[in-house]
Amino acid sequence: SRQEYVKNFEVHSTILPSTWMVARLDGNSFTKFCETHGFVKPNDIRALSLMNEAAIYVCKQLPDIVVAYGQSDEYSFIFSKKSNVYGRRIEKILSIVISMFTSAYVYNWNRFFDIPLQHPPVFDGRIVCYPNDEIMMDYMRWRQADCHVNNLYNTIFWAIVHSGKTTTEAHEQLKGSTSAVKNERLFTEFGINYNNEPEIFRKGTALIKPLYEPTHEDVFKEEFYRNHGIIE
Amino acid sequence: SRQEYVKNFEVHSTILPSTWMVARLDGNSFTKFCETHGFVKPNDIRALSLMNEAAIYVCKQLPDIVVAYGQSDEYSFIFSKKSNVYGRRIEKILSIVISMFTSAYVYNWNRFFDIPLQHPPVFDGRIVCYPNDEIMMDYMRWRQADCHVNNLYNTIFWAIVHSGKTTTEAHEQLKGSTSAVKNERLFTEFGINYNNEPEIFRKGTALIKPLYEPTHEDVFKEEFYRNHGIIE
Amino acid sequence: SRQEYVKNFEVHSTILPSTWMVARLDGNSFTKFCETHGFVKPNDIRALSLMNEAAIYVCKQLPDIVVAYGQSDEYSFIFSKKSNVYGRRIEKILSIVISMFTSAYVYNWNRFFDIPLQHPPVFDGRIVCYPNDEIMMDYMRWRQADCHVNNLYNTIFWAIVHSGKTTTEAHEQLKGSTSAVKNERLFTEFGINYNNEPEIFRKGTALIKPLYEPTHEDVFKEEFYRNHGIIE
Amino acid sequence: SRQEYVKNFEVHSTILPSTWMVARLDGNSFTKFCETHGFVKPNDIRALSLMNEAAIYVCKQLPDIVVAYGQSDEYSFIFSKKSNVYGRRIEKILSIVISMFTSAYVYNWNRFFDIPLQHPPVFDGRIVCYPNDEIMMDYMRWRQADCHVNNLYNTIFWAIVHSGKTTTEAHEQLKGSTSAVKNERLFTEFGINYNNEPEIFRKGTALIKPLYEPTHEDVFKEEFYRNHGIIE
Ligand SMILES: Nc1nc2c(ncn2[C@H]2C[C@H](O)[C@@H](COP(=O)(O)OP(=O)(O)OP(=O)(O)O)O2)c(=O)[nH]1
Ligand SMILES: Nc1nc2c(ncn2[C@H]2C[C@H](O)[C@@H](COP(=O)(O)OP(=O)(O)OP(=O)(O)O)O2)c(=O)[nH]1
Ligand SMILES: Nc1nc2c(ncn2[C@H]2C[C@H](O)[C@@H](COP(=O)(O)OP(=O)(O)OP(=O)(O)O)O2)c(=O)[nH]1
Ligand SMILES: Nc1nc2c(ncn2[C@H]2C[C@H](O)[C@@H](COP(=O)(O)OP(=O)(O)OP(=O)(O)O)O2)c(=O)[nH]1
Ligand SMILES: O=P(O)(O)OP(=O)(O)OP(=O)(O)O
Ligand SMILES: O=P(O)(O)OP(=O)(O)OP(=O)(O)O
Ligand SMILES: O=P(O)(O)OP(=O)(O)OP(=O)(O)O
Ligand SMILES: O=P(O)(O)OP(=O)(O)OP(=O)(O)O
Ligand SMILES: [Mg+2]
Ligand SMILES: [Mg+2]
Ligand SMILES: [Mg+2]
Ligand SMILES: [Mg+2]
Ligand SMILES: [Mg+2]
Ligand SMILES: [Mg+2]
Ligand SMILES: [Mg+2]
Ligand SMILES: [Mg+2]
Ligand SMILES: [Mg+2]
Ligand SMILES: [Mg+2]
Ligand SMILES: [Mg+2]
Ligand SMILES: [Mg+2]
Repeated sequence: SRQEYVKNFEVHSTILPSTWMVARLDGNSFTKFCETHGFVKPNDIRALSLMNEAAIYVCKQLPDIVVAYGQSDEYSFIFSKKSNVYGRRIEKILSIVISMFTSAYVYNWNRFFDIPLQHPPVFDGRIVCYPNDEIMMDYMRWRQADCHVNNLYNTIFWAIVHSGKTTTEAHEQLKGSTSAVKNERLFTEFGINYNNEPEIFRKGTALIKPLYEPTHEDVFKEEFYRNHGIIE
Repeated sequence: SRQEYVKNFEVHSTILPSTWMVARLDGNSFTKFCETHGFVKPNDIRALSLMNEAAIYVCKQLPDIVVAYGQSDEYSFIFSKKSNVYGRRIEKILSIVISMFTSAYVYNWNRFFDIPLQHPPVFDGRIVCYPNDEIMMDYMRWRQADCHVNNLYNTIFWAIVHSGKTTTEAHEQLKGSTSAVKNERLFTEFGINYNNEPEIFRKGTALIKPLYEPTHEDVFKEEFYRNHGIIE
Repeated sequence: SRQEYVKNFEVHSTILPSTWMVARLDGNSFTKFCETHGFVKPNDIRALSLMNEAAIYVCKQLPDIVVAYGQSDEYSFIFSKKSNVYGRRIEKILSIVISMFTSAYVYNWNRFFDIPLQHPPVFDGRIVCYPNDEIMMDYMRWRQADCHVNNLYNTIFWAIVHSGKTTTEAHEQLKGSTSAVKNERLFTEFGINYNNEPEIFRKGTALIKPLYEPTHEDVFKEEFYRNHGIIE
Repeated sequence: SRQEYVKNFEVHSTILPSTWMVARLDGNSFTKFCETHGFVKPNDIRALSLMNEAAIYVCKQLPDIVVAYGQSDEYSFIFSKKSNVYGRRIEKILSIVISMFTSAYVYNWNRFFDIPLQHPPVFDGRIVCYPNDEIMMDYMRWRQADCHVNNLYNTIFWAIVHSGKTTTEAHEQLKGSTSAVKNERLFTEFGINYNNEPEIFRKGTALIKPLYEPTHEDVFKEEFYRNHGIIE
């Protein structure tokens, strides 16, 4: 047709070859979404399991993913440096990962929650390119460190709140306290040995090619990547 | 953390200010998906209604959308030239539009179909930038022309098939035939006046700000855009 | 060869079709370069003439340029919206414009200056995309306004300095003073009617297709663009 | 000013951190330029020396360049992976490298050639990003292989022509002949031992940080990069 020319305005940006492509998605306004759907605080195992279910679906559809890592309302998918999926087109990869994940999340909701979904959940996403193994591993460490820091904080925060303080008081008490102090207080005041908390809460979840079964390993050590054939 | 630096590898591409941003999504392998779910051929009103439902949800969440246009397994969302949604960041807009649409599609499936969803449907997407009104209108015309051409073809194709021919024979007969010839044959052989076919099939669906109620207007005429305040 | 694959890492970004492409270059550290070569203050007609000479060379080589505008140590080249020069590849256009200009500047130095060039002058550059006529014209106005503001300031600044004040005193006196006040002081204290200053200093230089002869017109009025066939 | 907003249309693309940035420039229509200026065929030592002179100027101005490689009418500048020159902005780096090189080329012309420059020479340029050492080295090898292949061809081509054949005949004779055959013919027919040809012709020129003095080493071996501290 006479209008066909508008197709020429499309731009197909690609990710540099021979680099790690990482797609990270994150729940949109999940603070509110978790509230609305009565998620257990600070960690709801049903919510995490559903996230994992959706992520596994994505991995199985896109086997160029060598490892995925999830925690809280986010998931990261790491594609092989050699992957040529969708010609490495950014918009194709991003939109398809986001759509698959969202679709599987809603599709599987009822298998994990009794309460019906109140409205469609939404995730945002991005593609990031990491040029070498060291930086890709630091990316993974960054997300797991984030998981650790947030979870330690949330664990003691809700322990304080459940002991009768307001959330404002709990925040106040925790301001500036180190990890060591938090661990100590958890143990002496609340009888919680943080290291005995469920691994899925403390470490998040890694899905590793080819089975993509949930594990909660430490992703800080280079061995993790070597042992699983993620790097050579 | 020591790994925070990996955040600097993120790139936030944006769409040129004062231009039309168009997000188009399209069902992934919907030829197969429609088959699997027994969609009526060539047009399944339930499928189109569900597409519209999902698109309306997107529009209501993102009111910078001034008009959306859908047909078959695709939808286009046109953002105001003045929109500053998500700072015009391409990946943010794309991922959120795709996620909202997919989420609402799955969420609402049961309201339109009796058959349960067999697996999560997936859409891909892209953002295209059109610099002026004339080209934006040509974009809309391009999609509606595509709707028309495909629908006229499909209408006669399935009429021939339902009359007892194989799909191969039907394809063969239609090869190279003009619109005029197709219209004529539809009328004389099958008693179908193409102009009396449902507008939603022939024209697709436009959702116009602020109500975003489905209409099936002709988007070729400049009046369409002026009358609805899409252009000045 | 076995290494040919490295060619695939090249990225050829292009400028959106049907938009104004503007290449602007600016002398690198010209404050120092002007000092070193004894440029007359605040305006050296030889320097401006050499800039114009180099720019004319660029325009004649690249006739998709419809207008160019220069002042101080900078020049802007405006390509037709319809131009398909180098397939609108950003790096090609940018590098060739910069190289042509720099080459012609050094090549022609001796025709304008007696003092030999002390070291190679350097220009940086960028390509900017403007989606419509109104914004392209605002771009031109922005550069001419910059010319006017700087030149008015420099004219009175050097008048004060030549009258025996230090540069620090001159800066101090001018801090926060309006254009009106500067005009008035120039006239009453120094007997300079600013409007009688040479047009090339006050307005900068426009080169207009097809002859690209230097003019010093006002580029604020829409007529400028219409009269010269720059816009329709 | 009211027009200041046009500045927001500028886009500052950057090169991914921790990768090799390579700027390559190449003479524009140098086939003709060499003809016009009577360059010796196939290699003019004055031309190569001037190229080197201009490249050394660039390297000294931009000491993040760890190695540069030149041959024929082209030069490549390799920036350290850690470089943050101009915030890794593509257009800044590209335009400044191109401008510096062109400027120094014209500026130094008379030191190498007796014939005056007939018109301003022009170079185009590009920035390419290579994610790791191996690929950066392959890039260098690719350019040196190109030098070798072209120079071997040109050497025998001009030997044949100087022996009285037409250029068409020479081309015809060489069509499809291997390197081994060319070497052999050079030796037996023309008494030329190709390995005794000047290194600058056979290998091109590498400029290595910090002195950037011309060398004509083999850049195929990894030792080249290790010995000179280009890689670790
Ligand atoms: N109660 C509960 N909340 C959770 C759980 N997992 C995640 N969340 C909540 C805690 C945080 O408020 C939120 C995740 O933090 P984000 O930084 O992603 O914030 P949010 O999604 O609200 O905003 P955003 O749209 O991502 O900027 O989700 C859970 O298992 N239980
Ligand atoms: N039976 C039936 N099929 C439909 C209906 N709407 C769309 N489809 C089918 C017809 C086409 O095979 C397909 C849309 O064409 P596409 O070019 O988007 O192909 P498809 O999605 O298979 O591949 P893609 O992944 O987009 O490249 O969806 C409908 O209402 N009824
Ligand atoms: N004396 C004299 N100076 C001039 C003339 N034209 C331009 N200049 C000087 C005045 C300014 O210091 C300088 C232009 O300002 P810029 O903002 O471009 O500064 P400069 O080039 O030093 O730094 P840059 O590398 O562009 O950031 O050039 C002239 O005709 N005579
Ligand atoms: N006679 C002579 N010619 C040379 C010498 N160095 C380079 N050239 C010529 C040979 C080639 O025709 C030309 C370089 O090849 P290119 O592929 O760069 O072609 P050219 O610059 O003509 O076109 P381009 O604008 O780069 O696409 O320069 C030299 O030392 N002596
Ligand atoms: O979403 P935040 O606040 O964790 O931080 P971000 O994801 O880096 O910000 P954005 O979503 O705007 O890219
Ligand atoms: O999907 P098609 O075949 O209609 O054409 P396209 O969408 O332009 O192709 P792609 O999905 O690969 O961008
Ligand atoms: O210039 P060529 O023909 O050697 O090849 P190229 O440089 O890769 O092509 P272009 O200059 O168009 O990028
Ligand atoms: O060079 P300036 O300071 O006039 O401002 P700019 O050109 O916008 O800055 P940059 O050269 O860093 O793009
Ligand atoms: Mg975020
Ligand atoms: Mg979130
Ligand atoms: Mg989050
Ligand atoms: Mg497609
Ligand atoms: Mg489809
Ligand atoms: Mg389709
Ligand atoms: Mg600047
Ligand atoms: Mg300057
Ligand atoms: Mg300047
Ligand atoms: Mg080239
Ligand atoms: Mg060349
Ligand atoms: Mg060349």
